[in-house]
Amino acid sequence: MAKQKKQPRPKAETPKGFRDYFGAEVVERQAMLSKIAEVYHRYGFDPLETSAVETVEALGKFLPDVDRPNEGVFAFEEDDKWLALRYDMTAPLARVAAQYRNDLPSPYRRYTMGPVWRNEKPGPGRFRQFYQCDADTVGAGSVAADAEICAMLSDCLEAVGIERGDYVVRVNNRKVLDGVLQALGLEDDDEITRAAVLRTIDKFDKVGIEGVWQLLTKGRLDESGAFIDGVGLTIEQAQIIGQFLQSKGDDAQETFGLLSQLIGESVRGAAGIEELEQIADLLAAQGYGPDRIVIDPSVVRGLGYYTGPVYEAELTFDVQNEKGQTVQFGSVAGGGRYDDLVKRFTGQEVPATGVSIGVDRLLAALHATGKLKGEDPGPVIVTVMDRDRMAEYQAMAATLRNAGIRAEVYLGNPKNFGNQLKYADKRRSPVAIIQGSDEAARGVVQLKDLVLGAKLAQDATLEEWKSQPAQTEVATADLVAEVQAIIARHQ
Amino acid sequence: MAKQKKQPRPKAETPKGFRDYFGAEVVERQAMLSKIAEVYHRYGFDPLETSAVETVEALGKFLPDVDRPNEGVFAFEEDDKWLALRYDMTAPLARVAAQYRNDLPSPYRRYTMGPVWRNEKPGPGRFRQFYQCDADTVGAGSVAADAEICAMLSDCLEAVGIERGDYVVRVNNRKVLDGVLQALGLEDDDEITRAAVLRTIDKFDKVGIEGVWQLLTKGRLDESGAFIDGVGLTIEQAQIIGQFLQSKGDDAQETFGLLSQLIGESVRGAAGIEELEQIADLLAAQGYGPDRIVIDPSVVRGLGYYTGPVYEAELTFDVQNEKGQTVQFGSVAGGGRYDDLVKRFTGQEVPATGVSIGVDRLLAALHATGKLKGEDPGPVIVTVMDRDRMAEYQAMAATLRNAGIRAEVYLGNPKNFGNQLKYADKRRSPVAIIQGSDEAARGVVQLKDLVLGAKLAQDATLEEWKSQPAQTEVATADLVAEVQAIIARHQ
Repeated sequence: MAKQKKQPRPKAETPKGFRDYFGAEVVERQAMLSKIAEVYHRYGFDPLETSAVETVEALGKFLPDVDRPNEGVFAFEEDDKWLALRYDMTAPLARVAAQYRNDLPSPYRRYTMGPVWRNEKPGPGRFRQFYQCDADTVGAGSVAADAEICAMLSDCLEAVGIERGDYVVRVNNRKVLDGVLQALGLEDDDEITRAAVLRTIDKFDKVGIEGVWQLLTKGRLDESGAFIDGVGLTIEQAQIIGQFLQSKGDDAQETFGLLSQLIGESVRGAAGIEELEQIADLLAAQGYGPDRIVIDPSVVRGLGYYTGPVYEAELTFDVQNEKGQTVQFGSVAGGGRYDDLVKRFTGQEVPATGVSIGVDRLLAALHATGKLKGEDPGPVIVTVMDRDRMAEYQAMAATLRNAGIRAEVYLGNPKNFGNQLKYADKRRSPVAIIQGSDEAARGVVQLKDLVLGAKLAQDATLEEWKSQPAQTEVATADLVAEVQAIIARHQ
Repeated sequence: MAKQKKQPRPKAETPKGFRDYFGAEVVERQAMLSKIAEVYHRYGFDPLETSAVETVEALGKFLPDVDRPNEGVFAFEEDDKWLALRYDMTAPLARVAAQYRNDLPSPYRRYTMGPVWRNEKPGPGRFRQFYQCDADTVGAGSVAADAEICAMLSDCLEAVGIERGDYVVRVNNRKVLDGVLQALGLEDDDEITRAAVLRTIDKFDKVGIEGVWQLLTKGRLDESGAFIDGVGLTIEQAQIIGQFLQSKGDDAQETFGLLSQLIGESVRGAAGIEELEQIADLLAAQGYGPDRIVIDPSVVRGLGYYTGPVYEAELTFDVQNEKGQTVQFGSVAGGGRYDDLVKRFTGQEVPATGVSIGVDRLLAALHATGKLKGEDPGPVIVTVMDRDRMAEYQAMAATLRNAGIRAEVYLGNPKNFGNQLKYADKRRSPVAIIQGSDEAARGVVQLKDLVLGAKLAQDATLEEWKSQPAQTEVATADLVAEVQAIIARHQ
């Protein structure tokens, strides 16, 4: 073997666009996902975990960047096959539904949660690895499946702590839009124009109705000064599409009336409205009124593969954006019906519908509402006064743990006691336990209430210092009860 | 845009060496990992989740295949940097410990769980993506940190359901082996020989003591008929190394006595024995006797980077191997002290020690002992007799769910009622609910006890058929209570 060359030291850094999650970030996400999984499971959905790696051919090209090969994904060649990290959970589900079609129950309801990877330009808050949490029903053509997912989405949001009234699930139907386009004389099979219209009206939130008009016709100068080419429709066509987006009435009946006017004679459009009526009826019968789920034609969803109902959960409370403006929190989940994805593999149409919850967005929302604090309570720290008595300190920590208290012995160099307390602070430890040999001989321990100590250090009067000693001596036999009492006091 | 060519249909298949996990497989793993996380957390360990992707330079080369670039990992080039999927959890931890060294508490106790990826030849039960579940302490040089991890490992095994007596955590120390090699006159800095000796004696389990002798000296014909080159030691040297492997005495004191004879004057060897004595004392003081944790020089661990104590959890109950032979279940977790991994990045030595639990192995063990059944109870199925009454069926399912019962409405084509019951069977549904319009008019529902039905169909006498009707009619108002009663009957 050749002699090893001296190598330069490797850089300790996360790759560009990736990040690490520490402590409370991991705990809070896990807890939130567990609550969502519980709802999904209770609705009869079965968990599925596919591998992170798929063949590029199975993944297909459904990301916005469609022109360059492997664009948008992290791909590598193995055994003469191109493999890639999954970019969403829907493509792997379509693969599974095709691969195991003879073994899976039909309809197949499944949920899944985990990271997905996108090879996109990273930006603030925009990472190349992020979590999704999906639920889909494959093999059910009835819109009852779409309605069920909307109801379940509503339940999920409430289960994780979003209050009723702070969110709304909006439902639309691609078929109605298709009907509007047909009524405008835009050819049914003109996929390119349809896709351009979809992409444009998906920007309604950002550019407003006049922006949509401009983009649908001749184009528009965007904020950065760049000119965005228009789709080339006439002003009349653009205005009717604008009316479609704004046709949400005071109630579902009014909405359906407005939509009916826009679709003209389109059979597909009429079918779309009827599906929306069924969804509204099913949800009303189960008590999901428009305070939770509402028919709203302004919901479009960017992805091209949707073929029927589309839905989106929006959080309606206000937050400050990075410019300091007050805005609605916005979308945290979305989905819809995609009847053609499994067909790619098998040639047979398999109806499917499903939702994806944006895990990081929903976590951010729970932080914004104060439901999550980003804090994981630290362990009780047993300090080390005598290195020789390590076994006894360990036994003390074990006693606390056996009583269900998170506890550990300080395992750094014990020489500097100040470092031990600094460590306890950094860990957000509620209590430090101190026992030198004289205390051991007397059968006592010192308990330092670190929460109270920090409070006193910050703003206590002399009287408070005296009346609330942050450090107390207790019998070793009472250790568990006394520590529990201090922890309870600060909860 | 060019006109799209007709593409051949993609194959619906998992890439070679990857697999999907369904239903109970996901639920059971999640439940097991939660129990382990709870133990880790109670010991004061903080969760960490690093990104799946690392720079190749940060990962380093610690996999067995060291000769080819990027061998053993899945790598790809992005922005002129080589990135790769992590192959274990230790390399990312070392990177994190270096990258955040000014912000993390020291010592830093962390746990992590998630998939890792290895670009190795897949085989039966050997996949390219699998789970690890690690806990490590970085920045604690004291062997109290090693002892703590051994105790925690023991607690984890019991927490997930391995009975005391069915496992043992074995502890050894690399320094003792180094001492033995020094006593044999093998140069301290002869890394290549040391690595070859390590790899060889790690096969002790498989090839037995005579196999180890052969491999340490002139080589050996293996089972497949291939000749494996020997390390080139003398027979005397090989026999002494063999004695080292077999020097576990009836108790720790005897073991230490035997080891002392083998290390001669080696200072490093003596330090290793002293560390093992400290570990044994610390564990004994906390009540972890040799029924749970034992000093055993036959534990080696294959990885080259360990510098001190090494440990391994073995399950001692018998199982049948694929050849039908009765064997001990074997190793499910292992780890040790690696004081040089962070130094790669920073140049400063940072002591560290940690354990990795083989998640799939431990799950297999829990299945072998019957603790896990591989079954996830299916939902109650509300069947669809009248398509028009879908909203009422959905409301019925919602009522059951609100009472905490997993329930769903059949969403396939309802025309063939037999298909609905077949679906319920496939889902392992405990109860099917049937309500036609006449039942609805009378305010009743039919409950079909599917567990009892399956049992009766299999082996019931006529009397049992009559006395235990698998289908009963109940008032709709009693739906929840009656369904709960049936489910409870079969638990």
